[in-house]
Amino acid sequence: MPDAASAFIESNQDRFLGELLTFLRIPSISTLPEHRDDVRSAAGFVAQSLRDAGLENVELIETEGHPLVYADWLHAPGKPTVLCYGHYDVQPPDPIDLWKSPPFEPDIRDGNLYARGSADDKGQMYIHVKAIEALTRASGSLPVNVKFLVEGEEEIGGKSVAAYVAANGAKLKADVALVSDTAMYAPGLPTLCVGLRGLVYTEVAVKGASRDLHSGLYGGAAPNPVFALIELLGQAKDTGGRILIPGFYDDVEDPSEVELESWKSLPFSEADFLSKEVGAQALTGEEEYSVLERVWSRPTMEVHGIAGGFTGAGAKTVIPAEATAKVSFRLVPNQDPGKIVAAFRDFVKERTPAGVQAELRVLSAGPACIVNPDHPAIRVAAAAFEEIFERETVFVRSGGSIPIVGDFASHLGIPTILMGFGLPDDGLHSPNEKFAVENFYKGIHTVAHFLKKYGEAS
Amino acid sequence: MPDAASAFIESNQDRFLGELLTFLRIPSISTLPEHRDDVRSAAGFVAQSLRDAGLENVELIETEGHPLVYADWLHAPGKPTVLCYGHYDVQPPDPIDLWKSPPFEPDIRDGNLYARGSADDKGQMYIHVKAIEALTRASGSLPVNVKFLVEGEEEIGGKSVAAYVAANGAKLKADVALVSDTAMYAPGLPTLCVGLRGLVYTEVAVKGASRDLHSGLYGGAAPNPVFALIELLGQAKDTGGRILIPGFYDDVEDPSEVELESWKSLPFSEADFLSKEVGAQALTGEEEYSVLERVWSRPTMEVHGIAGGFTGAGAKTVIPAEATAKVSFRLVPNQDPGKIVAAFRDFVKERTPAGVQAELRVLSAGPACIVNPDHPAIRVAAAAFEEIFERETVFVRSGGSIPIVGDFASHLGIPTILMGFGLPDDGLHSPNEKFAVENFYKGIHTVAHFLKKYGEAS
Repeated sequence: MPDAASAFIESNQDRFLGELLTFLRIPSISTLPEHRDDVRSAAGFVAQSLRDAGLENVELIETEGHPLVYADWLHAPGKPTVLCYGHYDVQPPDPIDLWKSPPFEPDIRDGNLYARGSADDKGQMYIHVKAIEALTRASGSLPVNVKFLVEGEEEIGGKSVAAYVAANGAKLKADVALVSDTAMYAPGLPTLCVGLRGLVYTEVAVKGASRDLHSGLYGGAAPNPVFALIELLGQAKDTGGRILIPGFYDDVEDPSEVELESWKSLPFSEADFLSKEVGAQALTGEEEYSVLERVWSRPTMEVHGIAGGFTGAGAKTVIPAEATAKVSFRLVPNQDPGKIVAAFRDFVKERTPAGVQAELRVLSAGPACIVNPDHPAIRVAAAAFEEIFERETVFVRSGGSIPIVGDFASHLGIPTILMGFGLPDDGLHSPNEKFAVENFYKGIHTVAHFLKKYGEAS
Repeated sequence: MPDAASAFIESNQDRFLGELLTFLRIPSISTLPEHRDDVRSAAGFVAQSLRDAGLENVELIETEGHPLVYADWLHAPGKPTVLCYGHYDVQPPDPIDLWKSPPFEPDIRDGNLYARGSADDKGQMYIHVKAIEALTRASGSLPVNVKFLVEGEEEIGGKSVAAYVAANGAKLKADVALVSDTAMYAPGLPTLCVGLRGLVYTEVAVKGASRDLHSGLYGGAAPNPVFALIELLGQAKDTGGRILIPGFYDDVEDPSEVELESWKSLPFSEADFLSKEVGAQALTGEEEYSVLERVWSRPTMEVHGIAGGFTGAGAKTVIPAEATAKVSFRLVPNQDPGKIVAAFRDFVKERTPAGVQAELRVLSAGPACIVNPDHPAIRVAAAAFEEIFERETVFVRSGGSIPIVGDFASHLGIPTILMGFGLPDDGLHSPNEKFAVENFYKGIHTVAHFLKKYGEAS
């Protein structure tokens, strides 16, 4: 381990941290038009960093939104190619008054770097850059071929990168993707995420009367679209969390016994999860499944809101002419988003209450992603992670969805290593987002070590 | 009928109309602070009109909101006292671009007077004033004792007048109240409204997690307050419109056979109601009751909206920490608002889904009001109405709620004659509000005739 690259990292880590602070000072908030120049400036920073790290063919790729940054180094014939992905855009910092230090003036307290984007994802994507720099400076070359694709729209849907990946399969061809945008299961515990749930996000729009009606004059005889949605959606899930849409569970693939066993050994406390993370009176859902199964390997249905009625202060006795519900489904491996959409469409059609018309609009539909933990790259990544952190790597899933992982799978045909260095309490998207400085340093060591081992193993 | 008062009305009707136009030009929009002076100016106009009509003790009563106007004439010993109520405030005119003539520049087209407030309620309350003027000018005295109470907050909840009525029982003592703020069932058809539904308006607030959660990371195990409301409220009413809250129907008093029979003779077309008024695919509700029963004499439950989830454009995968539903009940005679609130409170308590806490807040609770059509004042009003319009008076109910009628009943112990001269298509609260000029003139005749007959009958 005390090889040239790690020696370089150790003697340069203060400089690396200083550069990251500069990166974090750029308020590259992708959703706010007034920060458009800042977002571009962050893209420029990334491009220069990649050049400085020894990468070639660095380019800013214009899109309909914010630019993509591409770079590569392809001088390791016979060796595999790793596609490094990250994003340089950040969430807005509101509510700003809850920050203890300004979101774009990075502050280090108690070993943590506080700034918007510190963990999500500037700090983590910069780990990749600095690992490459250490390897090229230490040996003049890289142990594998490397491509970088860094986007500036991850926080606003990632449309441009999805289109780019779909259209540039040859250019982006690689053996595996490397993404550092997740968290370790617990401090000091090397964690690889090998499963993500898919997401089908829909709107159900219901129309009743031709205009808003007075509930006094028409209540009792006129259809109420808000209540129609309550009637319709209330039938779709029972109190035990079981989804009642016919065919919904048909293709669900359960985790293997080995995977389920491994989850039991994770340091998970249901009491802590309830009190420290959720903070509700009780957990809900399918009691016959463990909590980790419920959030990682069971499909769900959520209603996020119903718009169209009156929700202001006070009383208004309106029967709205129309109402819309946001309804999403998290999918697990082997569930086909198209089949789920069709099943929900049939359900809506059959169960629409009398007097109203319902229309289903699909906003997005992506499948679950699962990575085989026995894939050579995953095995090497787990070993490298373990050697740097000196603890056995655990394999977890996430209940969330990372669309780019699905894009890499479907358009490039490659698995993604989700090697995250964040921590569960980093506060992504919240005030006082932080990133552990130690994880920044160790992350650089881990990525450099992984690339070296992966090159050696091939 | 061709008595002195009606002769006076006939020879002064053009002047009366001209004065009403002046009244309508005052944009007395009670809800908009920038129109505060206009509202006060309208109150002053009313006070002066009452003085000009021969009333005494005219006063502007200051309130926390807009002023009340009071006046009386009490020189008919042994005769009954009529309390005339109306309001001089109006709704905002938006959407302004849908008006064919400016809302505060009254325009007469095809026998209709177009202006905001023409029917609701300036034109109708001014009928009372001009009827009094005709009687005092024609004979130097009035056939009954008269009190006027005119408010400027009817369109914003009427809090001040409610408090004033509650606190001034002696001053406002009367035998019957007269309100012209409703519509005739059909053009030319004298109509007295003898029943109004009550209203219990509530908010059900549900709390789940201590903060908004990501539906990917927590969906499947964390309670969802939006869905909890769907589960809870979906159990409260069946698809046939029957409310399932235990005890809800216990005290419902059905209309008499006579009243039900009389409704059958009204010119009501269910097909027209559906296509011209509601404009939905089908009517809903309790099929075993006629449509008029459903909206006039059956209690209802409506959910007006659910706030707290995500309802913006696009997709957001939030499980909100809390959500609130607006839930109202229309009540019919003999249902006690307090008992209904208690029944709903019990229902919410028993059926709150696991994992969330629910709180019920009551925003308002008022009973139904019913007037006995055999009450002497109602009989006289019906006869007077009939004699002027030369058609038999019909007795209807309204599914809506007019809180002042309940206040007169509970605090003054008197019934209210709801003698409206509007028409169903007057467009109250909408662009191009209108009032038929003929109904303005005939209304003055009718009210004067009623007061005279009521004095004679006593």
